[in-house]
Amino acid sequence: MTQANYDQYRESVAGRADVADSPELLAYYAELERLKTGALWTVANKIEPWQPQSASVPVLWRYRDLREHVLRSVDLVTPEKAGRRVVYLDNPGRRDVSAAVGWLYAGLQVMKPGERASAHAHAASALRFIMEGSGAYTIVDGHQVTLAARDFVITPNGTWHEHGVAEDGTPCIWQDGLDIPLVNAMEANFYAVHPDLHQAVTRPVNDLVAAWAGAGLQPLQHGWTKPYSPLFKYEWAATYEALVRQAAVSDGSPFDGVLMNYVNPLTGGPVMQTVGASMQLLRPGEHTKAHRHTGSFLYQVAKGKGWSVINGQRFDWQERDIFCVPSWAFHEHANASGSEDACLFAFHDLPTINALGLYREQALAENDGHQPVTG
Amino acid sequence: MTQANYDQYRESVAGRADVADSPELLAYYAELERLKTGALWTVANKIEPWQPQSASVPVLWRYRDLREHVLRSVDLVTPEKAGRRVVYLDNPGRRDVSAAVGWLYAGLQVMKPGERASAHAHAASALRFIMEGSGAYTIVDGHQVTLAARDFVITPNGTWHEHGVAEDGTPCIWQDGLDIPLVNAMEANFYAVHPDLHQAVTRPVNDLVAAWAGAGLQPLQHGWTKPYSPLFKYEWAATYEALVRQAAVSDGSPFDGVLMNYVNPLTGGPVMQTVGASMQLLRPGEHTKAHRHTGSFLYQVAKGKGWSVINGQRFDWQERDIFCVPSWAFHEHANASGSEDACLFAFHDLPTINALGLYREQALAENDGHQPVTG
Amino acid sequence: MTQANYDQYRESVAGRADVADSPELLAYYAELERLKTGALWTVANKIEPWQPQSASVPVLWRYRDLREHVLRSVDLVTPEKAGRRVVYLDNPGRRDVSAAVGWLYAGLQVMKPGERASAHAHAASALRFIMEGSGAYTIVDGHQVTLAARDFVITPNGTWHEHGVAEDGTPCIWQDGLDIPLVNAMEANFYAVHPDLHQAVTRPVNDLVAAWAGAGLQPLQHGWTKPYSPLFKYEWAATYEALVRQAAVSDGSPFDGVLMNYVNPLTGGPVMQTVGASMQLLRPGEHTKAHRHTGSFLYQVAKGKGWSVINGQRFDWQERDIFCVPSWAFHEHANASGSEDACLFAFHDLPTINALGLYREQALAENDGHQPVTG
Amino acid sequence: MTQANYDQYRESVAGRADVADSPELLAYYAELERLKTGALWTVANKIEPWQPQSASVPVLWRYRDLREHVLRSVDLVTPEKAGRRVVYLDNPGRRDVSAAVGWLYAGLQVMKPGERASAHAHAASALRFIMEGSGAYTIVDGHQVTLAARDFVITPNGTWHEHGVAEDGTPCIWQDGLDIPLVNAMEANFYAVHPDLHQAVTRPVNDLVAAWAGAGLQPLQHGWTKPYSPLFKYEWAATYEALVRQAAVSDGSPFDGVLMNYVNPLTGGPVMQTVGASMQLLRPGEHTKAHRHTGSFLYQVAKGKGWSVINGQRFDWQERDIFCVPSWAFHEHANASGSEDACLFAFHDLPTINALGLYREQALAENDGHQPVTG
Repeated sequence: MTQANYDQYRESVAGRADVADSPELLAYYAELERLKTGALWTVANKIEPWQPQSASVPVLWRYRDLREHVLRSVDLVTPEKAGRRVVYLDNPGRRDVSAAVGWLYAGLQVMKPGERASAHAHAASALRFIMEGSGAYTIVDGHQVTLAARDFVITPNGTWHEHGVAEDGTPCIWQDGLDIPLVNAMEANFYAVHPDLHQAVTRPVNDLVAAWAGAGLQPLQHGWTKPYSPLFKYEWAATYEALVRQAAVSDGSPFDGVLMNYVNPLTGGPVMQTVGASMQLLRPGEHTKAHRHTGSFLYQVAKGKGWSVINGQRFDWQERDIFCVPSWAFHEHANASGSEDACLFAFHDLPTINALGLYREQALAENDGHQPVTG
Repeated sequence: MTQANYDQYRESVAGRADVADSPELLAYYAELERLKTGALWTVANKIEPWQPQSASVPVLWRYRDLREHVLRSVDLVTPEKAGRRVVYLDNPGRRDVSAAVGWLYAGLQVMKPGERASAHAHAASALRFIMEGSGAYTIVDGHQVTLAARDFVITPNGTWHEHGVAEDGTPCIWQDGLDIPLVNAMEANFYAVHPDLHQAVTRPVNDLVAAWAGAGLQPLQHGWTKPYSPLFKYEWAATYEALVRQAAVSDGSPFDGVLMNYVNPLTGGPVMQTVGASMQLLRPGEHTKAHRHTGSFLYQVAKGKGWSVINGQRFDWQERDIFCVPSWAFHEHANASGSEDACLFAFHDLPTINALGLYREQALAENDGHQPVTG
Repeated sequence: MTQANYDQYRESVAGRADVADSPELLAYYAELERLKTGALWTVANKIEPWQPQSASVPVLWRYRDLREHVLRSVDLVTPEKAGRRVVYLDNPGRRDVSAAVGWLYAGLQVMKPGERASAHAHAASALRFIMEGSGAYTIVDGHQVTLAARDFVITPNGTWHEHGVAEDGTPCIWQDGLDIPLVNAMEANFYAVHPDLHQAVTRPVNDLVAAWAGAGLQPLQHGWTKPYSPLFKYEWAATYEALVRQAAVSDGSPFDGVLMNYVNPLTGGPVMQTVGASMQLLRPGEHTKAHRHTGSFLYQVAKGKGWSVINGQRFDWQERDIFCVPSWAFHEHANASGSEDACLFAFHDLPTINALGLYREQALAENDGHQPVTG
Repeated sequence: MTQANYDQYRESVAGRADVADSPELLAYYAELERLKTGALWTVANKIEPWQPQSASVPVLWRYRDLREHVLRSVDLVTPEKAGRRVVYLDNPGRRDVSAAVGWLYAGLQVMKPGERASAHAHAASALRFIMEGSGAYTIVDGHQVTLAARDFVITPNGTWHEHGVAEDGTPCIWQDGLDIPLVNAMEANFYAVHPDLHQAVTRPVNDLVAAWAGAGLQPLQHGWTKPYSPLFKYEWAATYEALVRQAAVSDGSPFDGVLMNYVNPLTGGPVMQTVGASMQLLRPGEHTKAHRHTGSFLYQVAKGKGWSVINGQRFDWQERDIFCVPSWAFHEHANASGSEDACLFAFHDLPTINALGLYREQALAENDGHQPVTG
């Protein structure tokens, strides 16, 4: 299929392509196409942009809008037929890859007491952030972890994992986060259903959490050689306490307040090779300055209320709301309360961006670091 | 825009989604769309494939087909207007991102004696493999390297670089290789034209090649802290000699013959963070076994003639022909000569695949490791 | 000075030196000595032993023996004259280098309320383990940490550090541990007294402990690039809790029970480049199996009572006793209580041994892994 | 054995120990000794020196002095009785540990055509630098390398290795270098004689040298995971060529001229974990500036003639002479020829010093960086 015009990306700037179509060139372009080739100058300005162009748009998903739809799926489909009952977040700019932002997938999953999904494995890296309910658990390669609200759990690339809710629990909703779109884009995804549909729990419940129980304390015999954290679960209570302690001695970041990255305690590196996560605290009344950087972020409000300004657009949020910040979008956060702190959980692709040497960052220079709100 | 049907990806397999459309569900899906969400089970089987699905198709580009078109660009456009005169390889499955295979761009560039392109920098990582002509040179961050046929040169992420051909040279053609599509996909590309359009050569010509002149020899004062190789140029003569020496003492790989990876001599890692390259030698009459792995490869025939079988399709090649192997495609190579060796240059995204923990490999088990040729 | 005989190390084993002195050889040896040389075969068997020969002997230092002498130093010398009032442990095999074991120095230091030692820095790496008293503190490069019994604190190579006891504290005794003998042996020790004799506290008290407050949680802005742990203090309460939690889910090591290494939370590596430390728990009635390995260890009993067998010699210990295990000495530990756990603090040179590739380990094969007690 | 006086190390400097002996203190010291302890202030100034104190003295060993003695050993002892016929360098300050400098051993070994020493292994790391003769070879873990004058070969910690001279060779002399004293000091040495006295050559001769044949070229299938260089031999011709090429484009170091470190091509790190080596070139007439640093060095003159000034003492050297520079000794080198370059081979313990974080360096500030010659 031959294009109508080839000079739509012209720029009249030294060092950029600026070739007008002509009958001779159009004939030449047609010949090139026949040979499965093209003329670089017809696309150079498009494929070499001056700065990152994100296909994603900023979106806020309100939990009060989504919750009933998530719960309704319990009645609409069975786990046997649906696999998992999940409402996924579908960024208008990324519908082709079912991503919430960039190459990151996210969904809200619901499970009833006594349900247990089948075990599977995939090359994508996954995480869960618990939103409500009691009795949820996850089994990862034979290690079972129990989960409460605002706990964070990982199920890394290649692990057998399955989720369930105890018989004496309540309906549970959590956010799944995965790099499925990234791994598909890398043309490297694999999927397998566990041959027994379920795996045996081979170790005491929460054993790895107990093994990695203190900051700077490493079990003698950990024997861990996997490229992801052996600490599968990061509990909310300990995380929040750490933030509060840190807030007492540190000003934090001008852009992010007091922020703790969840890391692999064995290496200090990210929890998984492609996806990272963090929890940050905004002090009462704190309003951070704006910056932008490469990498895509999906936030969930873990505590409190406030707003964020993303590329000039204001999004007001409260607990359990989810919003995204696309790559290279300016963003700043504000805590709306003068007395309570606010906490934002986030997961992102910075481990990928860093591994590829693609991280760049820029503070907003104008207006004392605050964006004019236009939307 | 609401889809017509949502159950096109159903699979009747335990652990997979298998939900039929119903009026109630279609109404539910419409509500979800309004909220910028969707039901995972409508896309789960699509976004979680059993194994990698490459969008690229195997292609062989014959140099005898392309050469005249490359040379014709000299008459059709000026460097000032075109930026660079390049015929790029446009994989039929990747036309949306102008990639030769996967997320890799490649093009054939031509330059006349006395021409000198303007200097620029980008977040994409680039390389050149010289195909013909004399007098070519590249300047990278003030270091100039001279280039002869089958030399390999890198111009990494973030470096100022420019290409030219000496006044007393001949028209030069080379292959450019870049990860532009990858860096765009990562939403992390930046582009800049050098403020002076050209950079000064601040060091003796070929200084870094002289500094890193021997295997296992490291200059005391290298001071190199960049995340890419300080050895910008890898010369053909030394590379070929190394292959011949290695062939005398080693059987090589059953899948690749005798293969040398171009590496960063300071770390033993790949030449650049996202893109790697290699040169391999097939002995007279050698026919390797087939395997497949994640990662996308673009080969150029540096020496000799032979054929490759890619996903069952045979491609016959000779010097300077280029062909691609998509991710997870079975491939095997054969040297058609019983007396001369054959050499294949390749560049690929394995550094990216490895950094993200996504490498998987599988040998072909059937038929003594050889594919039936179907195309 | 010419030796009397040169054949004292002869061994009649193939591959070993076995040359008898003769008049001709003795004359030859004399000539060699004049040239500042010697004949290897006269010393080869001595300098190439079949297995490690430790100069250190196993010693138990009882706290009830030492305590009064430590306290007496308060009356005997002033801090101004003595620098520090310390009784150091002087292994009978290592008196030439003032080491407690191997290349490790240890001493018991006492300080009165209101005293504050002058600040200094050295290339040796130091640590303290608090034994009794309240109000102790240490300042390291401007960071102050407060200390309670059984807390562990590091003052690494090159840091300005000083110790003191608050006015409202009580007399404090702690164990110092350093690699002074090692750094002297490496001919790399430096010493400096702080130009102001004392350093300013530039950060909130215990700030780094607050910053690194949770397992797997990393402050966004740590900015730490030093080759040692940013977590200067490891508190007893958190350490003991981690051991108890770990004991609930793990059998521990057959040789060491449940053991936690104190590590750098930023890297998972040892707290300092040359010296490591650990705390281990022996369950009620636990008696570990014997093994031996390279590396020198100094233990202090943090909790409980029991005994250790070291190269066949039994040493009974109780709280605050100190004992050493020389390199390559068989050792096993036993908790004497059937109802209380026992805890051993240790510091050692394994980071040095590992960095040099010199770690070897061997379990005792005979007698179900228990040594006959001969001493 | 009680000392006569305990206040021999007093210093009247704030922050240092300055306690005079008294009858009461002497009684106290005696009690401490009985408890296998001591008072720190009696030794503090001794064990915490202001700067490194090397036990080694600078020495020059002239080859013309040593050669005849080395050759004479052929007649004096048999390989069967002596193990190896070696004249070792015995630094007057290090006779207790048979070291040439610091913790480094060195010796001159001779072997006749047709001789083959038995294979052994030890935890010490070893190297050879060939001085004269033809036909020498070394076998390391089944890999045989052939050796010519000024080639450098390693036989690392834990490898089975053996040396020999071919039947058609000539008497060969080489310098052995090892860290035997260091590994003994670390109490971690092991020695084993090969059960068959000799090992089989399992690979083509010089196979690893062929495999690692080019700068920046890495064999696909190296499979190397050992903590030392897979490139066992570094040939003189390639090393000298690299120095000459480097000299053409670089000023080199003001202290060392043009210097190449022999490194592990797989990691860029030192050839072995504890011992490093280098070859440096002094241009005609070059006279370097003086500096000092931690770490012990043993030099051998590979080419040319000149002199070095070490802690103010001048040593004139010519080809095959050997001299040492102790830790923290000022040193500078000069090429005596106005027309020929001079080359110095060195081996040293910098990998150990660096691994332990103990490297410090200081340029001589006075007299334009040149020492007054006093000896």
